[in-house]
Amino acid sequence: MNYPVIGYVLAWVIEIEGFLMLAPCLVAVVYGEKTGFVYLLGAAVCLAIGLCGTKLKKPKDMSIYRKEGMVTVALAWVVMSLLGAVPFVITGEIPSFIDAVFEIVSGFTTTGASILSDVEAVSHPSLLWRSFSHWIGGMGVLVFILMLIPVREGAGTQMNLMRAESPGYDISKLAPKVSNTARILYKLYLIITIIEMIVLLLSGMNWFDAVCITFGTAGTGGFGVLNTSCGSYTALQQVIITVFMIAFGVNFSFYFLISVKRVKTAVMMEEVRVYLLIIAAAVLTITINTAHMYSSVSESMRHAFFQVGSIITTTGYSSVDFDQWPSLSKAVLILLMCIGACAGSTGGGIKVSRIMIYLKAQKRRVNRFIHPHTIETIRMDGNSVPEHNINTIMVFLAAYCAIFALSVLLISIDGFSFETNFTAVAATLNNIGPGLAKVGPTLNYGSYSIFSKIVLIFNMLAGRLEIFPMLVLVFPPTWRRRF
Amino acid sequence: MNYPVIGYVLAWVIEIEGFLMLAPCLVAVVYGEKTGFVYLLGAAVCLAIGLCGTKLKKPKDMSIYRKEGMVTVALAWVVMSLLGAVPFVITGEIPSFIDAVFEIVSGFTTTGASILSDVEAVSHPSLLWRSFSHWIGGMGVLVFILMLIPVREGAGTQMNLMRAESPGYDISKLAPKVSNTARILYKLYLIITIIEMIVLLLSGMNWFDAVCITFGTAGTGGFGVLNTSCGSYTALQQVIITVFMIAFGVNFSFYFLISVKRVKTAVMMEEVRVYLLIIAAAVLTITINTAHMYSSVSESMRHAFFQVGSIITTTGYSSVDFDQWPSLSKAVLILLMCIGACAGSTGGGIKVSRIMIYLKAQKRRVNRFIHPHTIETIRMDGNSVPEHNINTIMVFLAAYCAIFALSVLLISIDGFSFETNFTAVAATLNNIGPGLAKVGPTLNYGSYSIFSKIVLIFNMLAGRLEIFPMLVLVFPPTWRRRF
Repeated sequence: MNYPVIGYVLAWVIEIEGFLMLAPCLVAVVYGEKTGFVYLLGAAVCLAIGLCGTKLKKPKDMSIYRKEGMVTVALAWVVMSLLGAVPFVITGEIPSFIDAVFEIVSGFTTTGASILSDVEAVSHPSLLWRSFSHWIGGMGVLVFILMLIPVREGAGTQMNLMRAESPGYDISKLAPKVSNTARILYKLYLIITIIEMIVLLLSGMNWFDAVCITFGTAGTGGFGVLNTSCGSYTALQQVIITVFMIAFGVNFSFYFLISVKRVKTAVMMEEVRVYLLIIAAAVLTITINTAHMYSSVSESMRHAFFQVGSIITTTGYSSVDFDQWPSLSKAVLILLMCIGACAGSTGGGIKVSRIMIYLKAQKRRVNRFIHPHTIETIRMDGNSVPEHNINTIMVFLAAYCAIFALSVLLISIDGFSFETNFTAVAATLNNIGPGLAKVGPTLNYGSYSIFSKIVLIFNMLAGRLEIFPMLVLVFPPTWRRRF
Repeated sequence: MNYPVIGYVLAWVIEIEGFLMLAPCLVAVVYGEKTGFVYLLGAAVCLAIGLCGTKLKKPKDMSIYRKEGMVTVALAWVVMSLLGAVPFVITGEIPSFIDAVFEIVSGFTTTGASILSDVEAVSHPSLLWRSFSHWIGGMGVLVFILMLIPVREGAGTQMNLMRAESPGYDISKLAPKVSNTARILYKLYLIITIIEMIVLLLSGMNWFDAVCITFGTAGTGGFGVLNTSCGSYTALQQVIITVFMIAFGVNFSFYFLISVKRVKTAVMMEEVRVYLLIIAAAVLTITINTAHMYSSVSESMRHAFFQVGSIITTTGYSSVDFDQWPSLSKAVLILLMCIGACAGSTGGGIKVSRIMIYLKAQKRRVNRFIHPHTIETIRMDGNSVPEHNINTIMVFLAAYCAIFALSVLLISIDGFSFETNFTAVAATLNNIGPGLAKVGPTLNYGSYSIFSKIVLIFNMLAGRLEIFPMLVLVFPPTWRRRF
């Protein structure tokens, strides 16, 4: 393994994190809150470490192979989280270090699961840091770094890093150079983020909420700034948030195609269509199923729309306590938790395209039983999907199930109900945030033991990095000397 | 599709079922119960239909291809169940036809899920019919027929029928001729069954209970004859039942190897070792986790042993109400529900060997990320597993998850808790019987709606026939005229 380059990339990550910690400092200045000093100190330390690592010695061999790409990305996320948790502990807002790590991993992985019972008691800088971590994590820190650092293009270094961090089974290269693809993605991300902020401000939301909620929506994170999540906002604001949640769950290739005026190709994207279709079907089912609970069908539909948008994109905001909904609606939400958003979006979960390819592979399989000699390729948007990718998806799904089952088993030691444990794992592995029962939208993850929290932290990271990098990281042969 | 031969095989199934219905008549004679006449009538009708179909006209072309094998087996099980349910309705013991179908499907598929709240009120012939259906379904009706009917060997007809009905991803041919393999399997099955009956009689159990409980154990079914399932039997009897449950969950190749004195090969079977290891680990975990609930560790271990044996083999007997156990123990049981017994046994579930191959494939995948150019074959018992089989297993697991998720969604309409619905699906799709909460060991499936019962009936059949035959049956292209 190329340790020097791994160290070099990690130093960059720490340096960037230092810069990012300056954001809460700005907020502290506005509100005149002392916790800002903690973030200033954090920024200084991170910048010092980072600059030492990046400026003092540049590795000669800058190539990163696939495995090293995975290990680097996984390590980067772990380091980023450990450092990002420190301010919470120093400000005393989250005294336990493991809780603080849980909170910031939940932030970076855009999960939005919290251990805080009273969000409104937290200072503004810390609230911003929580929400900002969603925005950073949504598109990816390494993707960001790829725009900046001159890692040698030739050996596929950048592609290997990007592949390990980007959500989606197969990140399409939007531009010939990876650094350009990264730039395009961040540009689109920034534009839609700014549009949402402006729209929310126009709707009458105060600037701090608008900024934080937008960060949470853009990264499909879900940390709110009020104890009611999004329940206290107006109906209009809730609809705006819903529309943007769904927009951030769309494959970014869609926006890229539109930006280069290939609207027809964009509109024909199979994954986006199926994604919208699932949303429509789920909203309809829940609207009917919960109609008796609200004063009007339009209210029931608005809440169904909000919750479906929030859960399928794995954001995790709530406008009502959906844990009170009837079983069918809850079962629909649990299913949406696992489906997740489109590949190439900021959302988590299994991803719509993976499920589509899986279903197509399934159909082909049954067809093969009937006509053993036909050869059939699986197509998405008219292009055939390589068998290698199909196989990877199958293994991904299997690994997903295995991690899911093992995690439920491990956190059951705490003695909570099966519904709590099952949805806690679903909500963390899919980067959603709230589950049902004891981890429902009005409650939090604080009651789990330290051991369970560590399991759930692993799940959040595995979910965000699409499982394989975290598996490679904890797989013993990775760390053997020679291979 | 070769409809004449499908009809011919179905006629054989009906004829055999007619013979089998004579068993409850015998019991009726012993106990002098009038319900015996219903079974006598049923036997007469089945024999009449069956004999007409098998003797009047024999199809010229006896070949059955793979797809037809699946359709035939799936249809045979549906027909067998519809006819087998009639006596329950006529005796008035289960007045609703759908309930009666649920009960007998649960019997034939060796599930053991009941809609009866008071088993002790049921007449002896009906109790025997319930338990006997387990014994028949455990090894398979078509496997039985394969010993009898002269389907042409050449075209792989028998293999295609056997493959579609036998539990396990890859039924190994124990003998060169399929009919001989079937004979060997039934002989082993009969011998172990008789041994269990004798041992239970020696332990002081009355003959009727001994016969019924043995049938339920042998087929890994789980229908009891007392409202307490096996809770009222002595500790010794419970241990005997546990040992035999575990024995029937072992791959029958193991007993075959021993019968031909290849003891060493038998003992080295990887699947059997892992199966026993899982049992040991689960018993240990549950013993520790439930120690505080019982007066002694030995009592806690006995119940853990019984329940683990019962659930992993997908039998479904209970010695205590395990729904009262702590969360960890319940989570372990839910996991065991899905793992299931060994391939080539009478047990259900995903099967230990499938999970082993899946894990090996998983490990290979991660290895491939590290060394992209290595070629590694997956081995079981020293033999390499063909890639085709591995792929089938992957698709099987995916189909399993899809059916699981869809079923939970559909039965959620009834409004029961997630734990109830999830374990109801787990307990039917894996052919176990009792789940947790509202379908726990002391309760039953009677409270579900007709729609949900139909979903669960499909699950039981899909579970017993290892999914693909039922999928082919309901897959529309199967029924298009030309292909």
